[in-house]
Amino acid sequence: MCVPACKQKIARDLGRRGFLRAAAGVAATLGAAACVPSAQLVQVATTTILPAAGLQSFSHVVDLTHTLTTDFPTFGGEQQLEIDQLMTLASDGYNLSVWLLNEHTGTHMDAPFHFSDGPSADQIPVQNLIGPLAVIDIRSKAEADPDAQLTPDDIAAWEASYGPLPDGAIVAMLSGWDEHVRTEKFRNADDQGGMHFPGFHIEAIEMLLGERNAVGIFVDTLSLDYGQSADFAVHYRWLPANKWGIECVANLGQMPASGATVVVGGPKIAGATGGPTRIFGFM
Amino acid sequence: MCVPACKQKIARDLGRRGFLRAAAGVAATLGAAACVPSAQLVQVATTTILPAAGLQSFSHVVDLTHTLTTDFPTFGGEQQLEIDQLMTLASDGYNLSVWLLNEHTGTHMDAPFHFSDGPSADQIPVQNLIGPLAVIDIRSKAEADPDAQLTPDDIAAWEASYGPLPDGAIVAMLSGWDEHVRTEKFRNADDQGGMHFPGFHIEAIEMLLGERNAVGIFVDTLSLDYGQSADFAVHYRWLPANKWGIECVANLGQMPASGATVVVGGPKIAGATGGPTRIFGFM
Repeated sequence: MCVPACKQKIARDLGRRGFLRAAAGVAATLGAAACVPSAQLVQVATTTILPAAGLQSFSHVVDLTHTLTTDFPTFGGEQQLEIDQLMTLASDGYNLSVWLLNEHTGTHMDAPFHFSDGPSADQIPVQNLIGPLAVIDIRSKAEADPDAQLTPDDIAAWEASYGPLPDGAIVAMLSGWDEHVRTEKFRNADDQGGMHFPGFHIEAIEMLLGERNAVGIFVDTLSLDYGQSADFAVHYRWLPANKWGIECVANLGQMPASGATVVVGGPKIAGATGGPTRIFGFM
Repeated sequence: MCVPACKQKIARDLGRRGFLRAAAGVAATLGAAACVPSAQLVQVATTTILPAAGLQSFSHVVDLTHTLTTDFPTFGGEQQLEIDQLMTLASDGYNLSVWLLNEHTGTHMDAPFHFSDGPSADQIPVQNLIGPLAVIDIRSKAEADPDAQLTPDDIAAWEASYGPLPDGAIVAMLSGWDEHVRTEKFRNADDQGGMHFPGFHIEAIEMLLGERNAVGIFVDTLSLDYGQSADFAVHYRWLPANKWGIECVANLGQMPASGATVVVGGPKIAGATGGPTRIFGFM
């Protein structure tokens, strides 16, 4: 909760920034999904039957989420999170902050709506946020070449060892890049500003869409597309196909290649094109 | 990701609001946890052993999260979320928004740091975010009296039916209030502005702290304390004891009183006093 004194402080704070004035312009620019009348957004309580993976038992969990800080690296290189602590324990008796957050910051979701008129983050069916994890390890080739991409051959090699990708799979690219998250190598920009980090190859996406039944993909880098992509082919093919992706996933190296289940706590904000997401891996 | 043109737009947008200037004041007011040098925040990959509940098998899931909209009811009555869509599919080739968000909005966490110098949301151990759910149903007395509170007698009645609260339990107050979330009755303010909705009684909190081993509590209302609380006794006793709470939980009526496990996808933002949280109930 936010005790009474708080709302005045927030009003002052937002007023100081002009946010209350800016808010008038928000409605006009909101995406369609965010304009759905609230009445249509009342929770309809439903029980969802889990995919087979949901029937498994687990004894261990890995947090696949980076801690998001105001200086967390971003695709564009600009700061995308600001935190303003409005209330402090010493002065106000409790701590409370306001965030100014670009949805695509930290370990975050790209919803279909990010690159299409498809579902926003809040509209993704729950059963598509829980599924069997397939970790495809391309660390060796990524270490040799930061422009490496996850190809159909990498998927085939995984299947040769672990069998066909399960229905409803969440397919993760393990490039080892999360180890660079607090160094310049995470963006790995060259003198011209071009970035060099791994991503999915468009042919691997076509394979997943045409010949498999995956619901989402993970990358441990800043983009579903590799850093040198000039056309964001993966974003423009995968997301409009009513699929989602997660960028900047952490700790994939701690997960087994096969047999684990992930729970993807995506943002449930109306009209969100994505947003910070808490992800747990169970095994 | 956020394509190149985006960062300039964001810079313009933030500049227009004075947020970049305001940011200079942020560091000075940030909570201690948020001031931890980034180097100390690098993910240390660890595998956590789950409590016993983690060993169960599940076939169904319930989304215990309300869809957050800009007009979602708040404790103070003021708007606490603004969404500014910076990029649109039609004009820019993709959709992207920035949120201005008060941490304590929608289905959200109160971290120990909200009312103490204890752990911020990102510092709560993962094993304390996954646990057996105990749903204590006070709907009948809440329907008769909106100022009803969950008391030690209600906990004792639950235990008489289902046995002792399990270690690491997450104890939920089911008042039925989530059905009012899109009506005035959710805040239920009287002519003087005082609110009338259920919450935990301080004696129930003392019982949980002194005689049981619960890690967190859920309420389906706007506050851990009941609406008429003058002193926020529950917040000031529970959170400083290194415990967390979730306010505005949805769909608890769809969960069994005992036997389910919940996964609490709390925000992993450094120094967060809480924040929107995605919660799934498994059974």
